[in-house]
Amino acid sequence: MLKGFVGTVQRALINQRKCYASSSAVLARAYSTRPAADNRRLEIDTMSQEANRKINSVFAPPSVLANPMNVPVKLLMGPGPTNVSPRVMQASSNQMLGHMHAETFQIMDEIKAGLRYVFQTSNPWTLVVSGPGHLGMEAVLVNLLEPGDKVLIGINGLWGKRAVDLANKLGASPIPLEQETGKSISLDEIEQGLSKHKPKVLFLIHSESSSGVMQPLVGVGDLCRKHDCLFVVDTVASLGGVPFFMDDWNVDAVYTGSQKVIGAPPGLSPISFGPRAVEVIKTRKTLIKSYLLDMNELTIQWQCGDPSIPRIYHHTPPVNLFYALREALAELTEEGLENVWKRHAQAAARLHAGIHSLGLKLFVQDESDRLPTVTTILVPEGIDWKRVVQFLMEKHLIEIAGGLGPTVGKVFRIGLLGCNATPEKVDRVLQALKEGLEFAKLQGHL
Amino acid sequence: MLKGFVGTVQRALINQRKCYASSSAVLARAYSTRPAADNRRLEIDTMSQEANRKINSVFAPPSVLANPMNVPVKLLMGPGPTNVSPRVMQASSNQMLGHMHAETFQIMDEIKAGLRYVFQTSNPWTLVVSGPGHLGMEAVLVNLLEPGDKVLIGINGLWGKRAVDLANKLGASPIPLEQETGKSISLDEIEQGLSKHKPKVLFLIHSESSSGVMQPLVGVGDLCRKHDCLFVVDTVASLGGVPFFMDDWNVDAVYTGSQKVIGAPPGLSPISFGPRAVEVIKTRKTLIKSYLLDMNELTIQWQCGDPSIPRIYHHTPPVNLFYALREALAELTEEGLENVWKRHAQAAARLHAGIHSLGLKLFVQDESDRLPTVTTILVPEGIDWKRVVQFLMEKHLIEIAGGLGPTVGKVFRIGLLGCNATPEKVDRVLQALKEGLEFAKLQGHL
Repeated sequence: MLKGFVGTVQRALINQRKCYASSSAVLARAYSTRPAADNRRLEIDTMSQEANRKINSVFAPPSVLANPMNVPVKLLMGPGPTNVSPRVMQASSNQMLGHMHAETFQIMDEIKAGLRYVFQTSNPWTLVVSGPGHLGMEAVLVNLLEPGDKVLIGINGLWGKRAVDLANKLGASPIPLEQETGKSISLDEIEQGLSKHKPKVLFLIHSESSSGVMQPLVGVGDLCRKHDCLFVVDTVASLGGVPFFMDDWNVDAVYTGSQKVIGAPPGLSPISFGPRAVEVIKTRKTLIKSYLLDMNELTIQWQCGDPSIPRIYHHTPPVNLFYALREALAELTEEGLENVWKRHAQAAARLHAGIHSLGLKLFVQDESDRLPTVTTILVPEGIDWKRVVQFLMEKHLIEIAGGLGPTVGKVFRIGLLGCNATPEKVDRVLQALKEGLEFAKLQGHL
Repeated sequence: MLKGFVGTVQRALINQRKCYASSSAVLARAYSTRPAADNRRLEIDTMSQEANRKINSVFAPPSVLANPMNVPVKLLMGPGPTNVSPRVMQASSNQMLGHMHAETFQIMDEIKAGLRYVFQTSNPWTLVVSGPGHLGMEAVLVNLLEPGDKVLIGINGLWGKRAVDLANKLGASPIPLEQETGKSISLDEIEQGLSKHKPKVLFLIHSESSSGVMQPLVGVGDLCRKHDCLFVVDTVASLGGVPFFMDDWNVDAVYTGSQKVIGAPPGLSPISFGPRAVEVIKTRKTLIKSYLLDMNELTIQWQCGDPSIPRIYHHTPPVNLFYALREALAELTEEGLENVWKRHAQAAARLHAGIHSLGLKLFVQDESDRLPTVTTILVPEGIDWKRVVQFLMEKHLIEIAGGLGPTVGKVFRIGLLGCNATPEKVDRVLQALKEGLEFAKLQGHL
């Protein structure tokens, strides 16, 4: 094989002359790789002086990697990622399994069962996209939309805008259904949009984490059926933390992220398609503009259909993130979905009460629009929000976030996600926020 | 907030009547979520009988998740994922950090430095795509190709075919440059293809893991410059295990996977774009058909340009996979790239010698075409390859693979990747393979 390697280089050099593209740098480098791949003293001895010199000309290794990695343990009370439980952390450090091993298939089947429970659906096409929540958005739109298709997109913060950008990139025709940042969109406004534009897809953000708004969904699915439109929902920042019933609410496609309420590390996007969405995907006229996200292929590796149809290799997924997601779903299942909803509702109620007692105001005016999992708080007059956020991070290793997109500079954002939705964590972040505000008022130095 | 939640449901119900889409199931379900999100005994007492009944109608939790997760420790001697070192396993179990924290940026910068070293490039656009190697292929093609663009794709196994499929999905015009499975493509054949078709991009698979062929690359970049064509290379199964010099070989874009020689878990795709590729991306006429993969956006979060330009949030990446990749690159850097190349070459030489002494034949005839990291072995006459693979897995917890795509049923595939490219691992897999072949000959029962 070593002779083979040398042969490769030599043949390449001959070919190279043949094609008149000789480059002394390339020749030298090619030779210089010989001893690197060579354990025979003899050949090293017989190398040219130039080759010996060039050995040392491989780009030097970076010194920064000689330092120890620095990963402090922080309390993540921003809009995500959230902290993961010891059980989930432990799971992600298991040794790798092959993506086609029986144990991996078992874990994937358990994940599918857990996700059907969290989405409250019986959809066979309930699986995981091998990328962050953002890839879930891409997976839904790239599978459902064809060039020119009209998609009505609710916009009351950053994420609706992002979906419009993506729809444009895919050659679809997005129609913005705009609402003031900090408010939800009413059923009347939605029905007017459906009647006027007759879109193929309605896309709503259940949890607008940039503004802290929760979009009511009850009844929307029925409107979409009435107007022969697919109902797609982004639940990245809400799923598991608030009631969601995919089947009863007639949601045709939904996705979320692993790193929010579910409490796994970021990097996976759970997704589900109902029968009407599957039909649309199966009857497309144009090719799906992705291979990794092509549900016709991915659902075979996940065996979402007839269990007698064997799985076929599609891609190599992040298996140790699967371990973590499986354990996060197991913890959620043990606690029980209704109890997890209740815990997040109680934590949010405690946080909101504490915010008021600090003399602060919530950004979302209508109580019924407030997202329990991500709370937005108005930055008080004369306070530099950056100094407050910085104080919490530097003095307490606690993350809270500033605004995002349309709320930058206007709000603080506090997340209550997964294992951080507890009275103790709420009290810790309230105490730290109190100190941070005092620090910012005093204009002190960190 | 609880009142708010109830208000949401009630308003939804009112709206629902307004839109004539009343569904008793939806009403009941909506009510049934009240106590779930409600911690006040009073309200629970005042609920309707129906609501109390419906509480229990939330889809039941899946029992499979009550079982312990089963992740046996195996020796992964297939074409990947490979085993990860204890240091890398430990790294991936660190607590989460936010994607915009200083420590995360530090880790991302260290990863960029490590990747420039492994790719042997000084390209500023050297970063990581938040998905498996397959997403790296999509990232390269979706950024470089516009509708109708001609891309010449070398095909001598599965991966070239996959790239053709993807190019078609993206609306480009792939031109297959076909070669017999098990053989590499010569510089003459490449130049003929370039002269005849004048493609915008030449796409070659450096390491065709389905056939065990390594494509010689020296001189190809010069041909591409001569024919004003971008040179794109897939190094998923080879990078780090064999010499590769992105800059000296005039490679314009390259990607790999985290789970092969680099020795991190799967789920990340290191990628690098040279100046000519960046220019093509910057001067596109059409939008890039992805948001997550849009290098104009992603390179800002990775701060691939001027370090004085602040990072902007793009998406939430898999931070604990970053920890693992950072540590894997640190281990590789400590050992030294030339030493890692040499270790893989020596392990392959030892494996190939052992294969011959077992009376087996390698699938790739030309020594100089053999890929050190993935070895393909002809399945002997009268041997059921599945029984051999099954024997190794069940009796030794050792993974070797059968063929893939065009080599299914014809070959065994043994990978020597990262920490498994050692004489000890080679001897273990050879001994197990010997026993597996004897078992298959004897037609014994497992």
